Amino acid sequence: MLFSVETEAIRVPKAAELVANRIRRAILTGDLKDGQSLPSETRLMEEFGVSRPTVREGIRVLESLGLITVGRGARGGAKVTRPDAGIVASAAAMALQTRGATISDLFEARALIEPSAARLAAQRRPKAAAEALRHHIDYELSVIDDFVAVTKAIAQFHTLLMEQCGNETLAVFGIALKDIFERSMLAAQPNMKPETEASRMASLRYGLRSHAKLADLIDAGDAEGAEAHWALHVGKAGRIWLKSVGATDVIDLFR
Amino acid sequence: MLFSVETEAIRVPKAAELVANRIRRAILTGDLKDGQSLPSETRLMEEFGVSRPTVREGIRVLESLGLITVGRGARGGAKVTRPDAGIVASAAAMALQTRGATISDLFEARALIEPSAARLAAQRRPKAAAEALRHHIDYELSVIDDFVAVTKAIAQFHTLLMEQCGNETLAVFGIALKDIFERSMLAAQPNMKPETEASRMASLRYGLRSHAKLADLIDAGDAEGAEAHWALHVGKAGRIWLKSVGATDVIDLFR
Repeated sequence: MLFSVETEAIRVPKAAELVANRIRRAILTGDLKDGQSLPSETRLMEEFGVSRPTVREGIRVLESLGLITVGRGARGGAKVTRPDAGIVASAAAMALQTRGATISDLFEARALIEPSAARLAAQRRPKAAAEALRHHIDYELSVIDDFVAVTKAIAQFHTLLMEQCGNETLAVFGIALKDIFERSMLAAQPNMKPETEASRMASLRYGLRSHAKLADLIDAGDAEGAEAHWALHVGKAGRIWLKSVGATDVIDLFR
Repeated sequence: MLFSVETEAIRVPKAAELVANRIRRAILTGDLKDGQSLPSETRLMEEFGVSRPTVREGIRVLESLGLITVGRGARGGAKVTRPDAGIVASAAAMALQTRGATISDLFEARALIEPSAARLAAQRRPKAAAEALRHHIDYELSVIDDFVAVTKAIAQFHTLLMEQCGNETLAVFGIALKDIFERSMLAAQPNMKPETEASRMASLRYGLRSHAKLADLIDAGDAEGAEAHWALHVGKAGRIWLKSVGATDVIDLFR
């Protein structure tokens, strides 16, 4: 009797986890689309050959992972939420806040990682990466007079490089940090030197020419050149933005 | 009339967001502890000078961020959930699955990032980092006969290096990938060459001596040496594990 109770206690969660894993896989591969309703409990019971409590337990696991939203009341029912980059960004932001990370820590990590992304892009997909970066540089130039918009666009350029380098892990890291960089650069903005409008524009144009040079080096497949140029750029630009950011802890950006 | 409606529509979410931000900050700094009950709605209304609907909206925001669990029924009430590293790991895992990342992509990213972590550790906190790594190496040696345990311990060693390097952003990236590396190495295990027990143990001991050498180089404050040694180690070890892993996509590790 004791034995059968134990078996039951072990078996049920495993079946529910199996159900959750199968559904999760369908969501992550896109077989189940964002916003789509989940098949009925009865249908899932048949499909997986499990009991109703097991199906419900599996759905609860998916709900806790944020992959299913279960509506309450008459309009209720389980709907698929395909996770987007936002969940990584908010998880990373919270982890960095909890660990007391500083902005200078973030800029240091970026300076260590992005030059490798520049090299990979030049090695692996020079034409596609250069085209995406140039397209974005056109956008940066189009909003150069709007200091908030151009600051956000510059933060986005760094993420785009990571997304275009041909390594998905670096892409995810880039996405994870995008919001925090954007916030830190927007916080730095009021304190930026030089202070006159003319010199601020000159400095912006200089930075964007450096973005364009990266695109050229990648386009030419010059892996060493792209890496060296970008190491210089993120080092120098990082020091400038960092000097101007008032907040020193990541958590201060989320006040 | 139209104007006042618009103002209302803008004002309310902003106040709720302010409430959410203030509470989130208290959770992330540890002022509100994990499992602690949130102050009553009435108390929060007084503290923030806002209406009950605003407090509730703020709590809903925190709930969607996973920072508050709201129990239903008689035992209900809002409880604090301080996010741990698990949320980053599961968010990163889901993002990598959604983006179709491969295991070789992960090992490549690791080979690009960890040598820098080794260098930073030697520069920044050689004694503390070396001590933590050596303590872990003792554990690795103690479980060397248990192939599953030692495999997990080896995955953990890489995370530990990132955690001990003195850069919190790299620490978070290390934590984000730990589970996936562990799964990929456990999946590789059955296919590992060499196949005899003796040669398998010899290969393990060789790897752990390389871990110990890293700890020595870090302890000596030899930044260049630590970086170069670790670049060699992650490159070589990565190729060995990668050759043996059956699954090629991250999503296959979560079947």
